[in-house]
Amino acid sequence: MTSVFDHPWLGGLFRDDDIAAIWSGDAQLSHMRAFEAALAKALEACGKVPAGQGELAAHAIDITMIDMNALAQGTTRDGVPVPNFVKQLRAAAGDAAAAVHTGATSQDVMDTALALTLRKTSDLLTGRLTALHDALSELKRTQGSHDMMGRTRMQAAMPIKTAHRIDAWLRPINGHIQALSTLRPQVECLQLGGAVGDGAAFAGQRDDVATHMAHSLDLTDANNWHTDRTAIADYANRLSLISGTLGKFGQDIALMAQQGIDEVRLSGGGGSSAMPHKSNPVLAELLVTLARYNATQISGMHHALVHEQERSGAAWALEWMILPNITAATARGLSAANELCEKIEDIGCRES
Amino acid sequence: MTSVFDHPWLGGLFRDDDIAAIWSGDAQLSHMRAFEAALAKALEACGKVPAGQGELAAHAIDITMIDMNALAQGTTRDGVPVPNFVKQLRAAAGDAAAAVHTGATSQDVMDTALALTLRKTSDLLTGRLTALHDALSELKRTQGSHDMMGRTRMQAAMPIKTAHRIDAWLRPINGHIQALSTLRPQVECLQLGGAVGDGAAFAGQRDDVATHMAHSLDLTDANNWHTDRTAIADYANRLSLISGTLGKFGQDIALMAQQGIDEVRLSGGGGSSAMPHKSNPVLAELLVTLARYNATQISGMHHALVHEQERSGAAWALEWMILPNITAATARGLSAANELCEKIEDIGCRES
Amino acid sequence: MTSVFDHPWLGGLFRDDDIAAIWSGDAQLSHMRAFEAALAKALEACGKVPAGQGELAAHAIDITMIDMNALAQGTTRDGVPVPNFVKQLRAAAGDAAAAVHTGATSQDVMDTALALTLRKTSDLLTGRLTALHDALSELKRTQGSHDMMGRTRMQAAMPIKTAHRIDAWLRPINGHIQALSTLRPQVECLQLGGAVGDGAAFAGQRDDVATHMAHSLDLTDANNWHTDRTAIADYANRLSLISGTLGKFGQDIALMAQQGIDEVRLSGGGGSSAMPHKSNPVLAELLVTLARYNATQISGMHHALVHEQERSGAAWALEWMILPNITAATARGLSAANELCEKIEDIGCRES
Amino acid sequence: MTSVFDHPWLGGLFRDDDIAAIWSGDAQLSHMRAFEAALAKALEACGKVPAGQGELAAHAIDITMIDMNALAQGTTRDGVPVPNFVKQLRAAAGDAAAAVHTGATSQDVMDTALALTLRKTSDLLTGRLTALHDALSELKRTQGSHDMMGRTRMQAAMPIKTAHRIDAWLRPINGHIQALSTLRPQVECLQLGGAVGDGAAFAGQRDDVATHMAHSLDLTDANNWHTDRTAIADYANRLSLISGTLGKFGQDIALMAQQGIDEVRLSGGGGSSAMPHKSNPVLAELLVTLARYNATQISGMHHALVHEQERSGAAWALEWMILPNITAATARGLSAANELCEKIEDIGCRES
Repeated sequence: MTSVFDHPWLGGLFRDDDIAAIWSGDAQLSHMRAFEAALAKALEACGKVPAGQGELAAHAIDITMIDMNALAQGTTRDGVPVPNFVKQLRAAAGDAAAAVHTGATSQDVMDTALALTLRKTSDLLTGRLTALHDALSELKRTQGSHDMMGRTRMQAAMPIKTAHRIDAWLRPINGHIQALSTLRPQVECLQLGGAVGDGAAFAGQRDDVATHMAHSLDLTDANNWHTDRTAIADYANRLSLISGTLGKFGQDIALMAQQGIDEVRLSGGGGSSAMPHKSNPVLAELLVTLARYNATQISGMHHALVHEQERSGAAWALEWMILPNITAATARGLSAANELCEKIEDIGCRES
Repeated sequence: MTSVFDHPWLGGLFRDDDIAAIWSGDAQLSHMRAFEAALAKALEACGKVPAGQGELAAHAIDITMIDMNALAQGTTRDGVPVPNFVKQLRAAAGDAAAAVHTGATSQDVMDTALALTLRKTSDLLTGRLTALHDALSELKRTQGSHDMMGRTRMQAAMPIKTAHRIDAWLRPINGHIQALSTLRPQVECLQLGGAVGDGAAFAGQRDDVATHMAHSLDLTDANNWHTDRTAIADYANRLSLISGTLGKFGQDIALMAQQGIDEVRLSGGGGSSAMPHKSNPVLAELLVTLARYNATQISGMHHALVHEQERSGAAWALEWMILPNITAATARGLSAANELCEKIEDIGCRES
Repeated sequence: MTSVFDHPWLGGLFRDDDIAAIWSGDAQLSHMRAFEAALAKALEACGKVPAGQGELAAHAIDITMIDMNALAQGTTRDGVPVPNFVKQLRAAAGDAAAAVHTGATSQDVMDTALALTLRKTSDLLTGRLTALHDALSELKRTQGSHDMMGRTRMQAAMPIKTAHRIDAWLRPINGHIQALSTLRPQVECLQLGGAVGDGAAFAGQRDDVATHMAHSLDLTDANNWHTDRTAIADYANRLSLISGTLGKFGQDIALMAQQGIDEVRLSGGGGSSAMPHKSNPVLAELLVTLARYNATQISGMHHALVHEQERSGAAWALEWMILPNITAATARGLSAANELCEKIEDIGCRES
Repeated sequence: MTSVFDHPWLGGLFRDDDIAAIWSGDAQLSHMRAFEAALAKALEACGKVPAGQGELAAHAIDITMIDMNALAQGTTRDGVPVPNFVKQLRAAAGDAAAAVHTGATSQDVMDTALALTLRKTSDLLTGRLTALHDALSELKRTQGSHDMMGRTRMQAAMPIKTAHRIDAWLRPINGHIQALSTLRPQVECLQLGGAVGDGAAFAGQRDDVATHMAHSLDLTDANNWHTDRTAIADYANRLSLISGTLGKFGQDIALMAQQGIDEVRLSGGGGSSAMPHKSNPVLAELLVTLARYNATQISGMHHALVHEQERSGAAWALEWMILPNITAATARGLSAANELCEKIEDIGCRES
């Protein structure tokens, strides 16, 4: 219970239920099942297993209860859950066991499951970016004509309209939406390569099997990204860029909320245990925290690019440690930014 | 459920129950209670509240059930759990409410609770470092006379004794134990400063109250580290240095386990879903992963040093996001390193 | 003389003359002159200064000798070189001084100069990426049919063709070329906003002036990226992704070059002062170093996204410290990777 | 010319001549000579070379002109300068060539030279820390009784005395001085291990030779830190902690200098090219920049702890890229902080 995202009370600040559901064990397990079921059916469709065996296996894959303790113990031993997962599925599939996982390897299952998780993640983030764009645009429409002081290097510089400051917050958002859209097909990709990634176990039919699977999972067949983590790191980069945008917004609001500056009035600020009169810009500070958190994490995703040979257990596991938290921080940042927009009662000076 | 440390199956690899217990919500809450109870008693001892009130309040603080939902909701609103926590405690204390939290602020509670958590963390890590030192020393004793090839820049250089390689793993460990011991009094410190850290609300008796509290909590009164996060960052640094030591050990073992090099034989390696014959050096790779994870995280702790004014919500919360995970990665690294030592059946070449 | 890129002997390993020339003081100064000259002409074209004054000023801007000591002293005082630079230019322009820098601010000059520098940087990197793609393709053509062992988690897994390993190195390269091409118009942008970025000093003609300048400098008028550093950070991200690709290549080569593995033969490896017989895979290791260097630096560029108000001296200067070194590491990585391809005499096993 | 520390005009802000001299090529070369000369004499003293040969070689080592082009070319080829350096020294030593570098390896030379450089670095930093402690103490003495507003979470909280804010800046400084002092013997260490670090080439006399060398170089014989980089990373950590302390100071000053807050008056602020009336807190912002720079770099030093086998070319070279810049940023931070203290004319409010 060390993560703020699941902490019994700090979770009140950091947790985002939507992203937590997307990355839950249940959701990830369902994606792993989806991979194996799609493979079983594809094996049948390509004549790699007798007619009916693929469907039979897929059904078993869909419905069998997974022994989670055994799965965790298997992960302790193997470093990945898939060997035990497959063992459980094969036992459930009975006579159709040969249609389970044949030709595939652990990374195929986990990377494809990740691709399915990132699809839902992108849906969530895109919706929130759009909402934030709308909220800031509305703020600009209603309060953009107010006057305020433009500040550079922490010093009063020249008067500006509030719209100019808001434009700075708005400017990158459509770019983020567009960039996410461009990145999606690069990460929403089937991974299918087998033991060393060359698909040799499919005896020349790897592409047929993959095409079938990609179609049923609605993924692209990117023919093998198991050691090329560029797209995953680039995706993490975009999420951290989004957090950076939000961090600037939060920092600006926190500075505007200072007594003596008084350029924003927020409803419902946070209370203090020592000073009941205070109204702290909690969400604004949170945006700064999350920006610096993701700016820290992105480094780890780039180190994971040094993914040696046909599979690096060390580099791959580093992604598992870091990427989910980047998505959680980004999603929470966006929900917090949208909440913060709602709390802005006045920005700039009405009369001047 | 985004953290590997609590993940339903990845937790099998990453989770360490001992460190998880130390950082559990329950344990943290008990430390927060300990702070408030010690304060209540100190207020009484220093004549800040009527005789009996401090004891009465302390008793209520110890036994009252905390409404965790309310605590989480309070954290959502206030950015910290303490205002709601104090509200619940004061309600429980009834007539003795004036002895609850008087003169203190949120950061006093949370930082002092952190100090108590780090004490247990240091106990755990020190024990494991000692065990690792013993295990490696024993390995050196039993297998140090074997021959192997010394390698520099990934190239065979000159033959060495296995003891020489093991010495490289051993070398930093006593230093880590010593450094942790030196760091302990710097982080096992009471924080007591009140609203802005100057103890003004204690009306000249801040030091008396603090001395009393420090004694009952067995902490040092470091007179105010609320904005000076040097010791906390230095502590995180030491933990990441430990992980780095373990990462070198793991990287060396993984390289020695390569077919063609064959300088180590491990029992019970991890299986593969595609290649049942394989025996993967899972724990060795895990040590590399954890080293690179902590090497990434340490940066965030240093950014949190820029802790502006009398309290930075943004910088402080960045610590909450990062430090617990550093401790979890370090503790797991040490348990994994100790397990790995047990798995080493042969190292170097017996006959040569 | 602390930087490896300019070090009297370490520069032999790290320095790349082409990127050093692009980022030289002379080249940067010429870009700053280009901005001011383009502005002077645009001011004239838009009727902001009397006819002839713009041309006159531009001519003075182009030819006047800049006192570099004064420029450095001005930077010491002002934190940016532009106030002193403008002072020198205005003195040189004499009667046309009013056409120098009018309406602009320091960041306009420096960011636009940066855009011009990044154009040349992208040209260089793109050419080298193309060369690397060709070299690896040729290697695959000539040696791809050789046999070697596929390795996962540092363990022998299944035999592969050398082409499969080379494909992993090749896979991201076209994507990098394409991504750089997409990023170019996002960073090759004029910055023109004046004191607080709203172009107020141009009295309604900011867009006219900018359009004129953008045309003459062959840049896009992105209407104000002075506080939105997304594109710059994204550019740095792409460069670090490139380094990551090269790091995997280098790590694989270093592992293949191990005695006992012997899957690659390199010409002209590095010598040792103690072991003249050794042939160290210096360039392969360098690629790993540069990948981890950029993976470290990228974090700083993301922290610089928290660029408060209308100009953050602190965040902006962080870019100055980090971005040039990222470009230097990336350019050197690419030249080293191309050299390494030339040194590969044999890869995999000819007969098997 | 990509580094701000040597940049023709940005150097005006970032360059520190004292630290630049300590890390200059000339100074580093003299340390490399010192190692080789000490070794030559030690070899003679221990009877490893005929009487007189060590002195003869040492003299040649001291006075021979080094061909810097050849040294750089050697580094290009070998990845380290030492093979070529030794070749030049041996040629110069003539008949005493056998007393040059015998038993040692490249890393012995470079790491020992680094230890000598860090000694001078620590001297410089310690002096500046002491000066800063004095300056802040004096500031507290003269202006500590002024009133100002204590601020938490960017909000006015409770009034404080200026002394309380200054105490927060002062608090960590003596700790830094003490910690540096403790760290010095851990990094001011001879490295002598030969090809693979076990001193085998000294045929049982490694410790005798090392003791002799350590004495003449005034270093500790730490018996082999070639692969244990803990102390180097810990040293870098301390420097970044120092920068973090300075970053908090700078951030506070920049916030205090805001119009509307007006809690500090600085002399000689930086000018603006667009707004001659402005007085920017350039040095305060620089402290924040340098803190975030070092907070970024420290991560790379921790990654370099994964130093595989008996010498990692990749991990070692990463230190070369990062550590010198950390020292440069720290030294400049301290000089800037001391300058900033001098510029503080008023802090807090005299009358209230």
